[in-house]
Amino acid sequence: MALETLETPCLILDRNRLDANIARMRASAERLGVRLRPHLKTAKSIEVARRVGADAITVSTLREAEYFADGGFTDITYAVGIAPGRLDRAGKLVARGVDLKILVDTPDAARAVVESGIAFKVLIEVDCGDGRAGIAPDDPRLLETAAAFGSEGPARLDGVLTHAGHSYGIADADGVARIAEEERQAIVRAADTLRSAGYAINTVSAGSTPTALMSRDATGLTEYRAGVYVFFDMDQQSRGVCQEDDVALSVLTTVIGHNRSAGKVLLDAGGLALSKDTGANAFRPEVGYGAVCDLDARPIDGLFVTSVSQEHGHVRLGPSHSFEDYPVGRRLRVLPNHACMTAAAYESYNILEDGALGAVWGRCNGW
Amino acid sequence: MALETLETPCLILDRNRLDANIARMRASAERLGVRLRPHLKTAKSIEVARRVGADAITVSTLREAEYFADGGFTDITYAVGIAPGRLDRAGKLVARGVDLKILVDTPDAARAVVESGIAFKVLIEVDCGDGRAGIAPDDPRLLETAAAFGSEGPARLDGVLTHAGHSYGIADADGVARIAEEERQAIVRAADTLRSAGYAINTVSAGSTPTALMSRDATGLTEYRAGVYVFFDMDQQSRGVCQEDDVALSVLTTVIGHNRSAGKVLLDAGGLALSKDTGANAFRPEVGYGAVCDLDARPIDGLFVTSVSQEHGHVRLGPSHSFEDYPVGRRLRVLPNHACMTAAAYESYNILEDGALGAVWGRCNGW
Repeated sequence: MALETLETPCLILDRNRLDANIARMRASAERLGVRLRPHLKTAKSIEVARRVGADAITVSTLREAEYFADGGFTDITYAVGIAPGRLDRAGKLVARGVDLKILVDTPDAARAVVESGIAFKVLIEVDCGDGRAGIAPDDPRLLETAAAFGSEGPARLDGVLTHAGHSYGIADADGVARIAEEERQAIVRAADTLRSAGYAINTVSAGSTPTALMSRDATGLTEYRAGVYVFFDMDQQSRGVCQEDDVALSVLTTVIGHNRSAGKVLLDAGGLALSKDTGANAFRPEVGYGAVCDLDARPIDGLFVTSVSQEHGHVRLGPSHSFEDYPVGRRLRVLPNHACMTAAAYESYNILEDGALGAVWGRCNGW
Repeated sequence: MALETLETPCLILDRNRLDANIARMRASAERLGVRLRPHLKTAKSIEVARRVGADAITVSTLREAEYFADGGFTDITYAVGIAPGRLDRAGKLVARGVDLKILVDTPDAARAVVESGIAFKVLIEVDCGDGRAGIAPDDPRLLETAAAFGSEGPARLDGVLTHAGHSYGIADADGVARIAEEERQAIVRAADTLRSAGYAINTVSAGSTPTALMSRDATGLTEYRAGVYVFFDMDQQSRGVCQEDDVALSVLTTVIGHNRSAGKVLLDAGGLALSKDTGANAFRPEVGYGAVCDLDARPIDGLFVTSVSQEHGHVRLGPSHSFEDYPVGRRLRVLPNHACMTAAAYESYNILEDGALGAVWGRCNGW
């Protein structure tokens, strides 16, 4: 089998699962009647972006914005607050004809954008309860930030954006739907506040993978952003957002040792190959650093990466497992906790289609 | 100041601190009368390797071995158990004239090495209590593994190797010295067992940064391996192995937003830029994802990266801090938890020497 020939550790991306995940999110957006602006921070791959099939995309770094612009995408939202020192670099994208939306959450940052003299479209980031970046919808700083934008341009206020990252704190569909409604109400309230003050608000952007899939109402939103749904991971599985057999991304690994005294099999997928994210453990503490699977990506009952060092994944065997089943050299696949973090350690994806290894797709890492 | 001109996030490596850390470890090895075989898994950089000034080195991946061989190093120990499928690739290094030592911890892996017909020098990995890879020193599998090596070669048994990773579980010098002594006794016992059975044992290799610095006796060891000491990090600082002003590696970051309601300043160094390692938190729970410093790398009292998302570092301000002191655009430096994990997200180091920015040194990532 071809999976026996790759150097390990490496990424395997199951294209059938990828396509099904893309279709599921698209159906959810159609059901809600809202446009999807996929967040490509997870895949960072032009080939994945093309399969996603959206004209409008979201990125998390300027390097991603440049990479996807090189690949022909022209409608890009850079959904991380911009530092004034990055405006020149971002301006080069605008000069190339990219319809670039950038993000601010302070009056000072808004003024710096205006002073750049570049025709940016600007979104004000709103905190809908996640507690990451953004201005609370009822905070007077929202209007103060908007006031930085005069009518003379060329930079202009385009809208508002929020992210319900706190939807990751809940593992049932009703709870996520409730947070989706809070997210919607918060960002619509911010948009209404600005409209009441006379600002034209085009973009009302919300989204996270859980809320985009489980929301019951998108009234007032112009778009949903979501990223990790293309791959899914154990983090999402542990929260009931997907099943294990939806997870499209895995790490191919090889058994490299046995520690019989400690009852452990050692893999060549450690902290660098899997990342040290343990997001799934909040709801499934047994997951550790990933779910160990056979070469067909079927989870092996009770087998997880229990701890990691830099280049070692430690797998503690249970009473139903035997060292003889995991000889040195055996290959396995690991479903990671958090696809965005794990994929970042690699330069490419090995594509598996209908069980056969095919193309290699690139990635754009760094900043 | 030049640090204002770099794209962030990026790595800053203080060469004065690097040199002092290298000198300190060299003095410790001289005191103990044992050779140092630095572990280059932390720096993965030929320029750092040259400053370390050792002829014999340790690596954690074959890609590192190839990279350092390209840079002229010929005495290399690949200190992670080798899978049989990697023997051909490793053999190419032997064919190039590299004196390559590889690692096994099962009789099957040893037999696979012998059957390769390649002139590898082989070390048997011994578990001295860390519980990672290796055979317990009194386990009969030690002799069983050695028995795979006949006298006819070309692969031959060269020695034994262990790593006291559990020295990271203790934060006082006496405790680490006790583990260093356990490490020494375990690996010397394994060597003696093999010698008593008639095997010539050349290499008796031990080491971790804490034990290599705090050991009081290296009798019977031929070398100490240590890696993270070149940079140090908050993980080591939290355990008393170094001081904050020894930490040579930092992440340069920019303030990108304010969340006044949540009391947070947002940085552009998040989970990808810092890694999700939280090793220092076992002894200093306040450290979170890193210690926030000014541009001279002076820690700011009470300021830490309290949480991270992919591209956001969240810094919760305390009663003594003010948002006005951290405007959007201000640059800061973050001392990371675990230098090995953090550095892996970057392609290069920006070298700071006597406070001035100078050369850019490369890194070798991936596998």
